[in-house]
Amino acid sequence: MAKGLFITLEGAEGAGKTTQAGLLADWLAGLGLDVLLTREPGAGSIGGQIRAVLLAPENAALAPMTEAMLLAADRAQHVAETLAPALAAGKVVLCDRFADSFFAYQGYGRGLPLDRLRALNEAATGGLWPDITLLLELPPDEGLKRAAARGAADRMERERPEFHQRLAAGYAALAQAEPQRIRRIDAGQDAAAVQAAIRAELLPELIRRGLVADAVR
Amino acid sequence: MAKGLFITLEGAEGAGKTTQAGLLADWLAGLGLDVLLTREPGAGSIGGQIRAVLLAPENAALAPMTEAMLLAADRAQHVAETLAPALAAGKVVLCDRFADSFFAYQGYGRGLPLDRLRALNEAATGGLWPDITLLLELPPDEGLKRAAARGAADRMERERPEFHQRLAAGYAALAQAEPQRIRRIDAGQDAAAVQAAIRAELLPELIRRGLVADAVR
Repeated sequence: MAKGLFITLEGAEGAGKTTQAGLLADWLAGLGLDVLLTREPGAGSIGGQIRAVLLAPENAALAPMTEAMLLAADRAQHVAETLAPALAAGKVVLCDRFADSFFAYQGYGRGLPLDRLRALNEAATGGLWPDITLLLELPPDEGLKRAAARGAADRMERERPEFHQRLAAGYAALAQAEPQRIRRIDAGQDAAAVQAAIRAELLPELIRRGLVADAVR
Repeated sequence: MAKGLFITLEGAEGAGKTTQAGLLADWLAGLGLDVLLTREPGAGSIGGQIRAVLLAPENAALAPMTEAMLLAADRAQHVAETLAPALAAGKVVLCDRFADSFFAYQGYGRGLPLDRLRALNEAATGGLWPDITLLLELPPDEGLKRAAARGAADRMERERPEFHQRLAAGYAALAQAEPQRIRRIDAGQDAAAVQAAIRAELLPELIRRGLVADAVR
């Protein structure tokens, strides 16, 4: 089976993931790579329906385990209909949020047991795991300020400050446990500098895997 | 913690679960019991949104694991917001479909591993388990004929005949494994006879648990 490259972007609200994912997709396509840009939750028609349940402000009574299972359902569908086929076809897949968000938000943030979340994630992914993860890090206050400036807060963004602090600590713990996979990027810089830092992390990996020639450097 | 009685109704499409559940709720209420009649999937506002995703005919691409996780999400919400509080308050809870449907449909029907489904169910329920389950049994052909007579088929009812045969075999295997909990009822009789058989199964249990006086018999 041909095998592409699976890159995920992670980080809290307002860290600039979506902007950076778009810039990164353009750069990778410019290098001649076959890129698929996608996101969780909410890719595809079924994912969009699940995302609507997750984010609706009127669903304030959503239990933490319900939320985790809806996210896992979204992931199972995304893997089956999009991620696994694209990677099997040799594409570079760029996914805005994946399993690390699940562990950070549902585990460190909501307090669900990490072993239970790992089992759910494993059932959803069938073992698919990112090759490289770009973690965009910002102080929690800064991220929330940026997210608020974008407009109405969704159900996640309306969580209390302690939640967002646990989240940041969770991401940091995940990064410490897997330093080879998870590359920490300072997202407090301007967007161009963040993108440059991301490219500097990725280019050696692309060369090492034979996806681009050394000459590009 | 006060503890009510948790009764589930199970069986394939067209077996008459909904009719029987209504008749049973009326009888239990007439005995002076505090009854809650509910169902899965789709109780409550969040459950209703999840049910809509599960049953929409346009969601034909729903992966088996996505479906299982959506059902587990629905169950987690139902347990947290409805079942656990009602049982803690000492009610008799009557639920139209619960975990046995999950094992029969997603396990025996769709072929997902039963151990994975048990782990998902355990995460959703926190260990809540029915005291008594009434399994309404019909030959698969007969149930589908009855369901079809009701109108347009939903995504489940449109499965092939082999699926419904595996389903019936699955329910039978579950009943054989737990004969004390799962009471098999011949649903091929007329509705009044089915209801009489259900009451005959339940009355000794209600008396044994001190929920109704022996005199009712």
